[in-house]
Amino acid sequence: MRDEDFIRGKIPMTKSEIRAISLSKLEWKRDSIIYDIGAGTGSVSVEVALAASDGRVFAFECREEGCDLIRQNAERFGVNNLTVVGGMAPETFQGLPAPDCALIGGSRGFLDKILDELFILNPEIRVVLNIISLETLAQAVSYFENRGLEPEVVSVTVAKAEKTGKYHLMKGQNPVYVISVGGSDRFHVDRR
Amino acid sequence: MRDEDFIRGKIPMTKSEIRAISLSKLEWKRDSIIYDIGAGTGSVSVEVALAASDGRVFAFECREEGCDLIRQNAERFGVNNLTVVGGMAPETFQGLPAPDCALIGGSRGFLDKILDELFILNPEIRVVLNIISLETLAQAVSYFENRGLEPEVVSVTVAKAEKTGKYHLMKGQNPVYVISVGGSDRFHVDRR
Amino acid sequence: MRDEDFIRGKIPMTKSEIRAISLSKLEWKRDSIIYDIGAGTGSVSVEVALAASDGRVFAFECREEGCDLIRQNAERFGVNNLTVVGGMAPETFQGLPAPDCALIGGSRGFLDKILDELFILNPEIRVVLNIISLETLAQAVSYFENRGLEPEVVSVTVAKAEKTGKYHLMKGQNPVYVISVGGSDRFHVDRR
Amino acid sequence: MRDEDFIRGKIPMTKSEIRAISLSKLEWKRDSIIYDIGAGTGSVSVEVALAASDGRVFAFECREEGCDLIRQNAERFGVNNLTVVGGMAPETFQGLPAPDCALIGGSRGFLDKILDELFILNPEIRVVLNIISLETLAQAVSYFENRGLEPEVVSVTVAKAEKTGKYHLMKGQNPVYVISVGGSDRFHVDRR
Repeated sequence: MRDEDFIRGKIPMTKSEIRAISLSKLEWKRDSIIYDIGAGTGSVSVEVALAASDGRVFAFECREEGCDLIRQNAERFGVNNLTVVGGMAPETFQGLPAPDCALIGGSRGFLDKILDELFILNPEIRVVLNIISLETLAQAVSYFENRGLEPEVVSVTVAKAEKTGKYHLMKGQNPVYVISVGGSDRFHVDRR
Repeated sequence: MRDEDFIRGKIPMTKSEIRAISLSKLEWKRDSIIYDIGAGTGSVSVEVALAASDGRVFAFECREEGCDLIRQNAERFGVNNLTVVGGMAPETFQGLPAPDCALIGGSRGFLDKILDELFILNPEIRVVLNIISLETLAQAVSYFENRGLEPEVVSVTVAKAEKTGKYHLMKGQNPVYVISVGGSDRFHVDRR
Repeated sequence: MRDEDFIRGKIPMTKSEIRAISLSKLEWKRDSIIYDIGAGTGSVSVEVALAASDGRVFAFECREEGCDLIRQNAERFGVNNLTVVGGMAPETFQGLPAPDCALIGGSRGFLDKILDELFILNPEIRVVLNIISLETLAQAVSYFENRGLEPEVVSVTVAKAEKTGKYHLMKGQNPVYVISVGGSDRFHVDRR
Repeated sequence: MRDEDFIRGKIPMTKSEIRAISLSKLEWKRDSIIYDIGAGTGSVSVEVALAASDGRVFAFECREEGCDLIRQNAERFGVNNLTVVGGMAPETFQGLPAPDCALIGGSRGFLDKILDELFILNPEIRVVLNIISLETLAQAVSYFENRGLEPEVVSVTVAKAEKTGKYHLMKGQNPVYVISVGGSDRFHVDRR
């Protein structure tokens, strides 16, 4: 989906290209239970909710403005399998169905606790992280090292042409680290 | 889908991250007629054929080795809506159903002719190009400029961690230009 | 030199990292005659004028604001071997000593004419181009192809950490193509 | 200087573009005492030794093959202010003149000890690190955080065109983190 399809507030949105890569690595199934933690504008939540049409998506977001945006975007696209959960993860996981995959777009300093809880809820869970800070990158690498897990780590740098007069100038976006780990080893087919 | 899921020959394969972005920008529908031109190993063809399960994918590839690889990969994944077309595009489009979206991964110097033919077959077609050479980039930008079309142009640079001893070293991949243009303006939902 | 050392106006400045690479590829000598075409804020001109202390630098810039900035920056660093030349290159080359190296940071659509003139002034000239638009990239590649020259072409993408709270977020800068060609083949030693 | 000017063995060489950026950030003076730690092929050592012609460069390298390469490259360029120091840093700093700037290209797991020792030898030292692993990046960020220093952190991603037939294909190089910290705040002028 295109970035301009979504209602955007002041909260930074995961860009289209990063969303596509992250959802691909999430290896969701049509009936997956998916956690989107630090859901922001809800662009990831909405796109995966539409795709995993027999599944359920829980969008965790601690900012009230974010929760509103996610609801607006869900409504805009007629999504009905997406639940917005306010408050601070991982406490807010309580009472919800266990996920088979989770995307972490923000962790407010609680990355270890969130990952601990996800692996308790489902030791076979597939987890994808979008990381933009050096500190969180270090924390994630160290977490998986300590747990004996070997994640895939890629950095993705996108530049996009902007027309200025008759020239297309390439404008750099911020690089994002996409880390993925866990899940089954059978190949993933998007039979949504 | 992961790169290691595919059978690979000596033909370079579109990497997982570029495939995810390109398929996202292709905005296929569940019943799309999709042309994959310069299909190479068939990784794009197979992934989109599995996803657009009510559609049809035509994989155009001029190298015999490539055609074999595509067939092997199609078989491996039990794909039955994918047709391999040998020979040199765009001549080989003849007699086939008109596409609603097309991905051009290679054009053997015939980019203009291929694009001309695609826009004749379907003036509303959605086209995505994966470009790795400066000459083809120039040709594509000039083609769309002359046609009065304003494509989206992004460059995507991916680096992937490789474990060496106890260190993860970031290994750079080749940057790819992903150009997309045309298609309807309504938002795209992957209801596969 | 650091970006923050320079006086900056509204004119975009070549960033420190691109400046370092470009000056390295320029392969100036201590007594070089250097043309800096599209000199902008003069950061390149000033840095190379300080380094090539027995040489002369001509900063060509068509915007009055740019000319002022270059003069201010030259004064700030006590540079006395730098001449600001207003007006539109290549006409403004007239009457000046022939360069042994030239950096083109902007060409206002006259890239071919500028290059033609530089190669007339000195067939052995070393030329470095900083390019940010797809159109100029295409034009440069085509120019050197037609002339039978094989330039080195690199793209450089820099991201820089910004501290936000206790996190360092990586912020992407715009990618720059740095093209270099010509000059002697003997190795370059910066004996300034 | 160009990469092809140097004698290269099996040891990976700092590429020209990274070398240019790193030397720029090193802010050496003509008479600097410079430590190049993990000197590898000596390309950085040789280039800075030629430039800082009234200074002295100490190239620390633990591999015998590396030490030989550095000596060969020093001889090739007629460098006489460069001393190769075998063995494992920081022990090998002992008895040498204190540096005013240091570049760390490799640290064999002793990054903290090396940095500690450098700051003891000269609390005002300028230090530049070239980092390619996630673990070392994390260690460096954490080290400077703990010391209350705010380094500049940039990542640099270079792609270089390779001619294949009549096409220039962009080939990605490995991204490098360049961290720099310390030194005086006065601007740096390369009056070599």
